[in-house]
Amino acid sequence: MTMKKAAVIMGSDSDWPVVEKCVNQLRELGIPVEARVMSAHRTPEQAREFARDARANGFGVIIAAAGKAAHLAGALAANSTLPVIGIPIKSSTLDGLDALLSTVQMPSGIPVATVAIDGAQNAALLAAEILAAADGDLAAKLDAMREDMAAATLRKDEALQEKLNG
Amino acid sequence: MTMKKAAVIMGSDSDWPVVEKCVNQLRELGIPVEARVMSAHRTPEQAREFARDARANGFGVIIAAAGKAAHLAGALAANSTLPVIGIPIKSSTLDGLDALLSTVQMPSGIPVATVAIDGAQNAALLAAEILAAADGDLAAKLDAMREDMAAATLRKDEALQEKLNG
Amino acid sequence: MTMKKAAVIMGSDSDWPVVEKCVNQLRELGIPVEARVMSAHRTPEQAREFARDARANGFGVIIAAAGKAAHLAGALAANSTLPVIGIPIKSSTLDGLDALLSTVQMPSGIPVATVAIDGAQNAALLAAEILAAADGDLAAKLDAMREDMAAATLRKDEALQEKLNG
Amino acid sequence: MTMKKAAVIMGSDSDWPVVEKCVNQLRELGIPVEARVMSAHRTPEQAREFARDARANGFGVIIAAAGKAAHLAGALAANSTLPVIGIPIKSSTLDGLDALLSTVQMPSGIPVATVAIDGAQNAALLAAEILAAADGDLAAKLDAMREDMAAATLRKDEALQEKLNG
Amino acid sequence: MTMKKAAVIMGSDSDWPVVEKCVNQLRELGIPVEARVMSAHRTPEQAREFARDARANGFGVIIAAAGKAAHLAGALAANSTLPVIGIPIKSSTLDGLDALLSTVQMPSGIPVATVAIDGAQNAALLAAEILAAADGDLAAKLDAMREDMAAATLRKDEALQEKLNG
Amino acid sequence: MTMKKAAVIMGSDSDWPVVEKCVNQLRELGIPVEARVMSAHRTPEQAREFARDARANGFGVIIAAAGKAAHLAGALAANSTLPVIGIPIKSSTLDGLDALLSTVQMPSGIPVATVAIDGAQNAALLAAEILAAADGDLAAKLDAMREDMAAATLRKDEALQEKLNG
Amino acid sequence: MTMKKAAVIMGSDSDWPVVEKCVNQLRELGIPVEARVMSAHRTPEQAREFARDARANGFGVIIAAAGKAAHLAGALAANSTLPVIGIPIKSSTLDGLDALLSTVQMPSGIPVATVAIDGAQNAALLAAEILAAADGDLAAKLDAMREDMAAATLRKDEALQEKLNG
Amino acid sequence: MTMKKAAVIMGSDSDWPVVEKCVNQLRELGIPVEARVMSAHRTPEQAREFARDARANGFGVIIAAAGKAAHLAGALAANSTLPVIGIPIKSSTLDGLDALLSTVQMPSGIPVATVAIDGAQNAALLAAEILAAADGDLAAKLDAMREDMAAATLRKDEALQEKLNG
Repeated sequence: MTMKKAAVIMGSDSDWPVVEKCVNQLRELGIPVEARVMSAHRTPEQAREFARDARANGFGVIIAAAGKAAHLAGALAANSTLPVIGIPIKSSTLDGLDALLSTVQMPSGIPVATVAIDGAQNAALLAAEILAAADGDLAAKLDAMREDMAAATLRKDEALQEKLNG
Repeated sequence: MTMKKAAVIMGSDSDWPVVEKCVNQLRELGIPVEARVMSAHRTPEQAREFARDARANGFGVIIAAAGKAAHLAGALAANSTLPVIGIPIKSSTLDGLDALLSTVQMPSGIPVATVAIDGAQNAALLAAEILAAADGDLAAKLDAMREDMAAATLRKDEALQEKLNG
Repeated sequence: MTMKKAAVIMGSDSDWPVVEKCVNQLRELGIPVEARVMSAHRTPEQAREFARDARANGFGVIIAAAGKAAHLAGALAANSTLPVIGIPIKSSTLDGLDALLSTVQMPSGIPVATVAIDGAQNAALLAAEILAAADGDLAAKLDAMREDMAAATLRKDEALQEKLNG
Repeated sequence: MTMKKAAVIMGSDSDWPVVEKCVNQLRELGIPVEARVMSAHRTPEQAREFARDARANGFGVIIAAAGKAAHLAGALAANSTLPVIGIPIKSSTLDGLDALLSTVQMPSGIPVATVAIDGAQNAALLAAEILAAADGDLAAKLDAMREDMAAATLRKDEALQEKLNG
Repeated sequence: MTMKKAAVIMGSDSDWPVVEKCVNQLRELGIPVEARVMSAHRTPEQAREFARDARANGFGVIIAAAGKAAHLAGALAANSTLPVIGIPIKSSTLDGLDALLSTVQMPSGIPVATVAIDGAQNAALLAAEILAAADGDLAAKLDAMREDMAAATLRKDEALQEKLNG
Repeated sequence: MTMKKAAVIMGSDSDWPVVEKCVNQLRELGIPVEARVMSAHRTPEQAREFARDARANGFGVIIAAAGKAAHLAGALAANSTLPVIGIPIKSSTLDGLDALLSTVQMPSGIPVATVAIDGAQNAALLAAEILAAADGDLAAKLDAMREDMAAATLRKDEALQEKLNG
Repeated sequence: MTMKKAAVIMGSDSDWPVVEKCVNQLRELGIPVEARVMSAHRTPEQAREFARDARANGFGVIIAAAGKAAHLAGALAANSTLPVIGIPIKSSTLDGLDALLSTVQMPSGIPVATVAIDGAQNAALLAAEILAAADGDLAAKLDAMREDMAAATLRKDEALQEKLNG
Repeated sequence: MTMKKAAVIMGSDSDWPVVEKCVNQLRELGIPVEARVMSAHRTPEQAREFARDARANGFGVIIAAAGKAAHLAGALAANSTLPVIGIPIKSSTLDGLDALLSTVQMPSGIPVATVAIDGAQNAALLAAEILAAADGDLAAKLDAMREDMAAATLRKDEALQEKLNG
């Protein structure tokens, strides 16, 4: 059994500086990833077809990043029963609140798993947690990563002690 | 030349108590109206096809009402170059702010003409103003309605004077 | 039958860097446009008279851009039954929320078609959609523009694929 | 020299239950008051003319109450250099935030003296403070009222002590 | 291979009227569910241990519902690499905004899959989508449910047509 | 009868870059002004005494500027029945919303006339409108200023026409 | 050494239904409490003097509850270096956000220990934690209370298990 | 009796530029301080143990600083009955509102004494006020600091007078 792929869809290539962290995190975890630019508003057909065929095409999870009235994650979720993760992107006004509410406040029946505004890395980790159900190695990697994170925090704690107390 | 029709689409039949005012106002103005329940998330195909064919089917304007992460107006606008009017519907949390931002903060290229939260009557009047471009009678009705509104306000002003000053 | 004109009114010439995109988009679509500086508060008479006479003077739609307690669109709408489009302008505090609510939350009877904060291009496109009712060529241009937008998104998608997968 | 009058303008007679407290407070202070229903949107001419002529007609201050995209105070202020006090009225959505921002965030040049959402009594007191500049008796009444308020608070304090400590 | 269980943890038994919809939806889909009352603040040890042992105890996904400064989902996520779904619960102030931000704005490294305020049914559906990766029958049920939802919307659409057009 | 003075109190000398516009505007209008640094929290006694004695010391209006939990205007208003104008100052977080609500949402009995966030010039103009009740020359200056503002807007309008149409 | 008293000050006796929970909780813990009605705006002198003399009068902590532009806690804190705890009270508009920001966003130099909107019980517990520094018995009571809370949550958990699983 | 220590815990060493002001203020007041990096999410065990043992280890107060879904203060408070002070840290989106609500809106039973967003100095002063209960010298230092603050404000007031009036 091969690992399912993660799709990373962004509404505009201007979202790439944020979304890049998501793609990089998925790759570091060894997860096959396909990153695409598709828009719920400018290329609704492509988005719909991608979502429709995603399970059949070997995807196990879809990540969607969009700003403002961020419909992309919801539009993909409306066309697939794969888990869809939404990353609200902060744009030039309202500090990301518009994208957050547009992504998370989905009506009953069509869930979107929303992460923090600009939370690209966490979207990747959530996707990994989902894919890890069928992949013990990936689950082990995630556990190891948590230990690394804890160790890094402990090192920072020690560094602070040293700086303050010499 | 016959008058273009107005479409009134709501995301759920639970929106009807608000949307009804829109349909009634359109009918009072003599505008042919087709009211439909369609969901950007539950029946995306129907919504897409309706928008695609709306101009050819004799519609001149589309009104869409939805709550929460209100994608309906945007999803219709993505599939038509007819003017699309969005009514954000207040739901059980956040007092309508989620629906307002999800409707109005559309990305460049796909406009939605947004009215106030639960602003069903104004959506009808805006649709009428749009259709009146090709219909002098309708324009005259709108002007008359403004005069009626002004007169009603004046009468309320007089009634208040009377109540206060005897 | 000649095409109706679009009026673009801004509350202050400091709004021009945003509003310019609206004027340029209208011109690209071949729509005759008259751009004006008028203020609901500083030149209320001029604004009122402009709105009163707009239909007679050959305008088919009015676009109004203003920031803070943005009354301009509402003040124009109070004096005309032409469709009035409001662009809320972000100013130095509150990230545009004040202008958005002041523009969109109009009372029953006087609609304003509100677009996103700083949504100047979409205001132009919405105006074009309204004027296209009487102008098949303009409708065709709008449809073509949608296709161009879709094609541009597809090209960006391809460019991303290439960058990522070599 | 006779005392200047206070004008109390409301955008709709549905605002009366809130505005009534303002009128009653003014009358209790012996201030001549004229209460009117006028709308920045439905009867803009009347509102404009009222403001234009207010100083000549013996008014010393104008109070304006309106909800939603509350333009009334600003529209009156645009047509008079009398002090204009704005009462933002809470309506069915957004808990009064829309009316507050529409009233208070006025652009440079045209001030509106804004009080709390539904702050009808304070609008009356502020008007009285303004009119008291030319009326020592009114100033004395306001000072006495402050002492009464303090005394009432002290009595409530005593009542609470008694309830708690027997 | 037996299906993984879903855990549904609520911060207080006062959350049950909302959370009940989540448990019922999971059961309707045939997903084994364990519903628990645990608090990030009142029983932090139990919550931590539950999360630590959840994978070993046969859980495939954890759902956490909490209001106000809703830390429960984040506290569970900090102790497990299973997917954790957060339901922000609306309480007596701030209309659920506090719970939403406390749940969704997680720092990098520890994701929480957040659904809408009071979005209990969607939390269940998202859990089902996650568990369906290893269970073709469940995936089929979810697809069938989507078709039922679409059909129900179509019936409501027809009912509205009938009501309006006789 | 000599003109009453305007007091301009700021909570911190770091508010001066905003408040300076208020002082300059008052001076341009020939209004005697006393600008002071006083804090509701750091020098509550001085603030209280200043407010207590303000009327006796020849002041006709008090302007107070403060940021964050902006209590200064309310603290002064609690100790004087002179009109008190509040300028909410934007600080490093929350974009001025905290100062706005702390200034405007005063309880019944103690009004503060609130202007826009950082609305220093309008605070000066509102003060002038209040003082103009007893000073026909000042009223005439304010009317003239309005005409100048209108004229400036008309010139900007003409300049825009010229730029666009050559 | 006798235990220090807790002062509970409310801005209005209408706050009593919320504040009562605070007083009751303090009494249950055996803490001597003095509850008072004082207003930062209506009886500023009394409030100031109370705060000035509080330490000398045997108080160890001051709790202040107020709504809207809630200045009470800050006004007390400005006149004492005792710890001052603020309870923001939800009033008829803005859902408590105004009181929260007015209480918590204090400028540097004068801290207020703010608890949740209407968080009367937690204010009492925080006061108890502060007083417990000098009172081992009180600290033990607080620890015992935590254990009771945990036990109550565990019982609710068991009750839910029983209800669901019979 | 030796003075109790203050713990200053930050969720990430990136919070140090804000938290540093807290540590410096504590040291200036002669309060023994231990500053640590611990995360409610990355090192939950360390945070829990630290809080559990804090009283026994000689701490009298715990200060916790964190951004976004700021759970740190609440997580520490859940494991100690020492007073816990929360500093909400502003991060890259939402201007600190997320951290403020996540910190202050604690459920009944577990209080967190919340100061302003980025209010590091006030957290130190609040901690000092708490520790001063058992330390007359510290109380005297705090009183002296208030006098210094008042004097500094008076000097700034004089400096402004001089600048303006020469």
